[in-house]
Amino acid sequence: MTFEKLNVKQEDAVLFVEIAAPPMNLLGPELVRDLVSLIQQAERDEGVQVLVFKSADPDYFISHVDVTRINEYREQVAKMEGAESLALLFRRLSMSRLVTIAQIEGRVRAVGSEFVLACDMRFAARETALFSQFEPAFGLLPGSGGAQHLARLLGRGRAMEVLLSADDYDADTAERYGWINRALPAAALGEFVASLAHRIGGFPAAGHAVVKERVNAVALAPAEEFSRDGDLFSAGVRNHEAQSLFQAAMKRGLQTREGELSLTTMLGLGR
Amino acid sequence: MTFEKLNVKQEDAVLFVEIAAPPMNLLGPELVRDLVSLIQQAERDEGVQVLVFKSADPDYFISHVDVTRINEYREQVAKMEGAESLALLFRRLSMSRLVTIAQIEGRVRAVGSEFVLACDMRFAARETALFSQFEPAFGLLPGSGGAQHLARLLGRGRAMEVLLSADDYDADTAERYGWINRALPAAALGEFVASLAHRIGGFPAAGHAVVKERVNAVALAPAEEFSRDGDLFSAGVRNHEAQSLFQAAMKRGLQTREGELSLTTMLGLGR
Amino acid sequence: MTFEKLNVKQEDAVLFVEIAAPPMNLLGPELVRDLVSLIQQAERDEGVQVLVFKSADPDYFISHVDVTRINEYREQVAKMEGAESLALLFRRLSMSRLVTIAQIEGRVRAVGSEFVLACDMRFAARETALFSQFEPAFGLLPGSGGAQHLARLLGRGRAMEVLLSADDYDADTAERYGWINRALPAAALGEFVASLAHRIGGFPAAGHAVVKERVNAVALAPAEEFSRDGDLFSAGVRNHEAQSLFQAAMKRGLQTREGELSLTTMLGLGR
Repeated sequence: MTFEKLNVKQEDAVLFVEIAAPPMNLLGPELVRDLVSLIQQAERDEGVQVLVFKSADPDYFISHVDVTRINEYREQVAKMEGAESLALLFRRLSMSRLVTIAQIEGRVRAVGSEFVLACDMRFAARETALFSQFEPAFGLLPGSGGAQHLARLLGRGRAMEVLLSADDYDADTAERYGWINRALPAAALGEFVASLAHRIGGFPAAGHAVVKERVNAVALAPAEEFSRDGDLFSAGVRNHEAQSLFQAAMKRGLQTREGELSLTTMLGLGR
Repeated sequence: MTFEKLNVKQEDAVLFVEIAAPPMNLLGPELVRDLVSLIQQAERDEGVQVLVFKSADPDYFISHVDVTRINEYREQVAKMEGAESLALLFRRLSMSRLVTIAQIEGRVRAVGSEFVLACDMRFAARETALFSQFEPAFGLLPGSGGAQHLARLLGRGRAMEVLLSADDYDADTAERYGWINRALPAAALGEFVASLAHRIGGFPAAGHAVVKERVNAVALAPAEEFSRDGDLFSAGVRNHEAQSLFQAAMKRGLQTREGELSLTTMLGLGR
Repeated sequence: MTFEKLNVKQEDAVLFVEIAAPPMNLLGPELVRDLVSLIQQAERDEGVQVLVFKSADPDYFISHVDVTRINEYREQVAKMEGAESLALLFRRLSMSRLVTIAQIEGRVRAVGSEFVLACDMRFAARETALFSQFEPAFGLLPGSGGAQHLARLLGRGRAMEVLLSADDYDADTAERYGWINRALPAAALGEFVASLAHRIGGFPAAGHAVVKERVNAVALAPAEEFSRDGDLFSAGVRNHEAQSLFQAAMKRGLQTREGELSLTTMLGLGR
């Protein structure tokens, strides 16, 4: 398997997938195309049981969607999956027979957070990982399942806080809040995740399938709720207020590698 | 805005509301009247986006309802809100477009806990905050949504523990259990909350509304469940056993400022 | 009350129940018989309000079901409870008017974990308690409610992790994940639990009943879901792959006291 924006390596039943979309791992149509294609191929390959997602960029896991190309990546999802919604693509990943693990270093914001929330498990580097759903700073609901997952994982009070504050949360706080499974020292993260992935990969596929089905039946939001959030995001993003806030933020460094190192501080300033 | 039992100060889109109902911030008809009036006025004022609730009394945030005036405060709610139930008043606060933050020092027991649970977020002083739903010590279910919120936030095991034990829980334990968002040093609490409130207040109202609607759709109990708990409390409180336990507790200091400093210890003694 | 596999001692309204089924507290038909009989008798005795379960074996609380006698213990449940399912027996315990507390030292794996999850509260010794749902290592779903409880208590990510990893989790991690109420130093555990049990036992039975009913209405899975998990386990356990994995594990020490000290390490090796 070779892709433009992904480096893939297989070891036994585990596929290690490295996201490599310089300069800052924005989610645009090419990365969407590669992720959909990867999932489709891996699902068809009975030799693959576990996917581990990590980033080639130490500062950004997935930064967020490319806000200048929203229609393009939506068309890409529609063409490949028959549903014009990242929310439903991510839900499909959650429902897959494949076990998915996110190994997180750097920034995981907006759709980046939603992607790792769609994975089955999330482990993050204590020193470097940062989590944010900053959409409400633009008056928007996260459109790809963030509110659905966070309301269930964090509970009402903490989900309200992280969504309404639109701020960055470090890995230790994310662990305490339930956003991630665990924060680990960066130096130990890779080995921990690889060992867990191989352990799971060695167990029978029948167990993976039945565990995922039964846990999802309790804890994964219905497809209608994902669609509804996607629609609310789409309606909101066309709004005049959101558009003018995006334009103002672009002038201050939104979608630039340097400017986004302190993105959520910038969003809170000078309003 | 001026009230008998509340001190209110506005800064930009944030209203800081200090509860001041000496001698111990019991919830009686006057405080209910002022809270309802405040919420109604704030909701009509488009310049207000965020309410911060705190207490003028370092030992008591809200102690509990005035058990000698239950009918009176219920009539007050009914007159102003058309529903004879604090449970539904609190649920209405949770559903409000206003973002609500509780800044907690001192004791938050029974209806006090239920009030802060109705807020969108809760931050508490590590050294002084104490949380309790002591109603089961009198054979009663909390009547204003406590069981609904705690079962969802804490999960079955911890909700059972805190309700059945009827004991005090400090801020660190409350944080670990998910009762509050976070415990902070008392010296840092006010600045943390004010900064968060202003950050949220600077973001578009459209984002607050859609986030609150979607998170509540997942994590806030239906109105029928709040009503049902209110009815179970009302039926229970008229019970002979509950009344005689209340009378015994009054003799030992219930509803006195000194006697309630160690209320939950007193409730566990000499049975 | 006297039983072959249980030591029972009553103090006021609290029944202290010690599980004593050497050599390793496997759950077989005799222990099932005694547990069902104990619950039935305690429920009929109005002098009993609280059950505390602990183990006479410092290394094993309940190890797991006796995999060589699955039909026998199922018949025992059916004979006494009219339902051929441990899942429904455990759910009945969760619904009981009795308040149940698990005081955990040693290993609590598979059905052992499911038994303590069925209790209302769980407190564990920090130094010695180990938790595992290792059924997925054999391609199986836990059959007695484990997935139902864990998905609700831990949330989707952590429930997926602990089920799919089939690994041991220590008491501190179990506390952080919400599997148990609290980890305590082994030296303090007994006194903490006894004090809590007596405190609850001194409060009115009416409060226990209404709290349990209302919290269960929110947080306990429906009977159909427990039944469904039981059926999935039963179907899976007859599977050829599961049977051959059980036979291989028996050769490596499954169901031996020594061999199971490091059971989950053994399950992860040499696959």
